[in-house]
Amino acid sequence: MHTYHHEVRYYECDRMGITHHSNYVRIMEEARVDYLDQLGYGFDKIEAEGVVSPVISIECNYKHPTTFKDIIDVNVSIGKFSEVKFEFLYEMRHGDKVVCTGKSLHCFSENGHIVAISKRLPGLYAAICAQNDAPNNQ
Amino acid sequence: MHTYHHEVRYYECDRMGITHHSNYVRIMEEARVDYLDQLGYGFDKIEAEGVVSPVISIECNYKHPTTFKDIIDVNVSIGKFSEVKFEFLYEMRHGDKVVCTGKSLHCFSENGHIVAISKRLPGLYAAICAQNDAPNNQ
Amino acid sequence: MHTYHHEVRYYECDRMGITHHSNYVRIMEEARVDYLDQLGYGFDKIEAEGVVSPVISIECNYKHPTTFKDIIDVNVSIGKFSEVKFEFLYEMRHGDKVVCTGKSLHCFSENGHIVAISKRLPGLYAAICAQNDAPNNQ
Amino acid sequence: MHTYHHEVRYYECDRMGITHHSNYVRIMEEARVDYLDQLGYGFDKIEAEGVVSPVISIECNYKHPTTFKDIIDVNVSIGKFSEVKFEFLYEMRHGDKVVCTGKSLHCFSENGHIVAISKRLPGLYAAICAQNDAPNNQ
Repeated sequence: MHTYHHEVRYYECDRMGITHHSNYVRIMEEARVDYLDQLGYGFDKIEAEGVVSPVISIECNYKHPTTFKDIIDVNVSIGKFSEVKFEFLYEMRHGDKVVCTGKSLHCFSENGHIVAISKRLPGLYAAICAQNDAPNNQ
Repeated sequence: MHTYHHEVRYYECDRMGITHHSNYVRIMEEARVDYLDQLGYGFDKIEAEGVVSPVISIECNYKHPTTFKDIIDVNVSIGKFSEVKFEFLYEMRHGDKVVCTGKSLHCFSENGHIVAISKRLPGLYAAICAQNDAPNNQ
Repeated sequence: MHTYHHEVRYYECDRMGITHHSNYVRIMEEARVDYLDQLGYGFDKIEAEGVVSPVISIECNYKHPTTFKDIIDVNVSIGKFSEVKFEFLYEMRHGDKVVCTGKSLHCFSENGHIVAISKRLPGLYAAICAQNDAPNNQ
Repeated sequence: MHTYHHEVRYYECDRMGITHHSNYVRIMEEARVDYLDQLGYGFDKIEAEGVVSPVISIECNYKHPTTFKDIIDVNVSIGKFSEVKFEFLYEMRHGDKVVCTGKSLHCFSENGHIVAISKRLPGLYAAICAQNDAPNNQ
């Protein structure tokens, strides 16, 4: 899986001159979208099937500030997962420094009801399992 | 019609320490939502009928910067309008200074097709006409 | 301390029709700004002294979606704190439902160096201690 | 000068499922930043000299909606300019469709005072003049 890159925009920086902390949550979403695309299960494809993926929780740990024009390299990996929930882990670097680490927990929902990923999106479930068994996740 | 108030948020300010110019477009939307509510035709009510209101164009003229915690008072009025399009005019003040003026042009659309406001939303059309005839609009 | 209120904006809702999850992080900031104002130590006052308050970490647990025009009532309280770090806890409700709970951890910094709150901002430190001793925090 | 590309993010789409109109103002800023970089006068370089570039006015004409994952190609060119103000013109396309056209008017300011571009940033002024004389601008 390739690394996702985000270049910090002017409008993402705040009065302190640094990337506003809320934007890392958006960068995590961008990286997650890209990761699911790489797995072959993009948001657009999933939504076209009538399934949406609400976020259950997020967490960000800010290590170093970044600013306008900095390139943030985001490595995404799968954390804990079950038949109904799965977690993404994020490591965000600028150059050789870890600037932020994050986590997000997700489920899938159809017509307002939680669905079992293994049944409703079996291909995605298999891809998550395979990804999790990959050597770089051990 | 009452004036709409927006207090500038920390995250709305940029590296120059001032309200990022893109946010005035959002403040104009907030004020427009409030104005339509006052006319009795809120976005939510219109959308519940299956009608959406795309923006055709916008314009902002920035006169003075504002910053964190400034209260922006927005006066909305109806500009030019026809059976299919209508324009909102915005005057944004902070204290006794005009900080920004704006315009937005809108139509209504249902299932991807432009609708005649006078036919599809006759009550709103009447309200717009009445508003436009009001003494403060002359 | 009074409750902070945020009305969900049109532009804060996403393709699923619900408040985008990143916006709760911004609502938490708004509520925190208001809370510090109530303590007499607003961001603007602190920044005017040359001190900034970076966010060390945040966490959000999404319980129920909210949407356009929903009023979110935010109760802020002080969590753990020391001489250099302090935590805010957030309970966000819409009507009688808890829609989101959150946490944020902060420090204060001057010229790039962490400062001891008890020394650099002794009044704020006393206010935090007093708040934490208040009956509703036990 | 190369074309700037923006891929529409999930969080940039609204309840109608389309890119929220305020985001085009941000996309125009991204494209302008890139254009000034190409001229050798990036925002960061200019700000490092103590000069900031406030926006005087903006205008957007929305032609077609775009949505999540659409690539917006932005062509920037110089419009009218004088010694103190200059205008950027934007044509935004998705595939072979023009989705939005825009304009923005700017000046440069130092310590709160407008500066003559030709004197304070003569290299940039020369670059703007040269760009404007280029065949594709006639």
